[in-house]
Amino acid sequence: MAHIELNNELPGIRGLMAYRPETEAPLNALAEVLLRSDNNTLSRGERELIATYVSYLNDCFFCQNVHGALAGHYLECDIAGIDGIKANFRTAALSEKMKALLAIAGSVQKGGKQVTEAQVNEARANGATDTEIHDTVLIAAAFCMFNRYVDGLATWAPQDRQFYVDRAPQRALDGYQSSVYK
Amino acid sequence: MAHIELNNELPGIRGLMAYRPETEAPLNALAEVLLRSDNNTLSRGERELIATYVSYLNDCFFCQNVHGALAGHYLECDIAGIDGIKANFRTAALSEKMKALLAIAGSVQKGGKQVTEAQVNEARANGATDTEIHDTVLIAAAFCMFNRYVDGLATWAPQDRQFYVDRAPQRALDGYQSSVYK
Repeated sequence: MAHIELNNELPGIRGLMAYRPETEAPLNALAEVLLRSDNNTLSRGERELIATYVSYLNDCFFCQNVHGALAGHYLECDIAGIDGIKANFRTAALSEKMKALLAIAGSVQKGGKQVTEAQVNEARANGATDTEIHDTVLIAAAFCMFNRYVDGLATWAPQDRQFYVDRAPQRALDGYQSSVYK
Repeated sequence: MAHIELNNELPGIRGLMAYRPETEAPLNALAEVLLRSDNNTLSRGERELIATYVSYLNDCFFCQNVHGALAGHYLECDIAGIDGIKANFRTAALSEKMKALLAIAGSVQKGGKQVTEAQVNEARANGATDTEIHDTVLIAAAFCMFNRYVDGLATWAPQDRQFYVDRAPQRALDGYQSSVYK
């Protein structure tokens, strides 16, 4: 049971967003521009993967499954594939650029000052642009917020991981704007 | 020097926001509704104090000074007073409700699952509403994002703490909407 009375039975961040529409709007707008905007040289799948990896490091069941299912949807990868990337992205079938960006995201999860010049240089050497490095840091930072919001208020989450996979295609269409975050 | 070329000389989050206006808009909208909206039973000073305390725990110099100066402005408290609250809020001249909310914020900083039922009960016993508990968790979570964003990209910050105090009154008037975050 959540720490506060949400007056709805929606899971995870959906229940919080229905409870407080004033904060829902900017939170969804942020997710939309970071994860879904077409004006980005990182694919939607790559950005969802960064969100998934940080949510995994923060041990947030709801977020890592919602965004893991979306990453899997975009990258044509099943639950086991996403789990493999989360457990060890260095040995996964990802570009060297993506591995370097995930390393930066992993440092952001620990704390902003953990990101090193060497990590940034590695990303750049593998073709990452400044905007891609910027967006990686901000996606990782944003999920340090979303994960704490979801778990800090003890929201519930469906335990069947297939639930998230089944919903991902519609979620990918709907996007994050407004209360269509379903 | 920042990890990426920002093409401006603005400090802290201001440089990042000028660099990426697409993400500036929802980030400022979130700060505005969380910290400054009049439709809130927590005062602006109390909300800025939660932001300051979390930024202190995350060791983010820029954020703890920007928001510490704003908290001081609203609460009529100098730098030493704010520093005293950061170092030990339990012995500070704050309401028991505020102390309970700062304890929740401190747990959120460590991780969402660190917030305990006992902490929530303590806040409620001291008069905190569900919305106040919600907003405390989200402010704390949001500053785990802002702090990581500012430090994860290695932005620079003015080192003279009086600089932040001097700017706080105008900052309090301007608010966080749009690029007037100066």
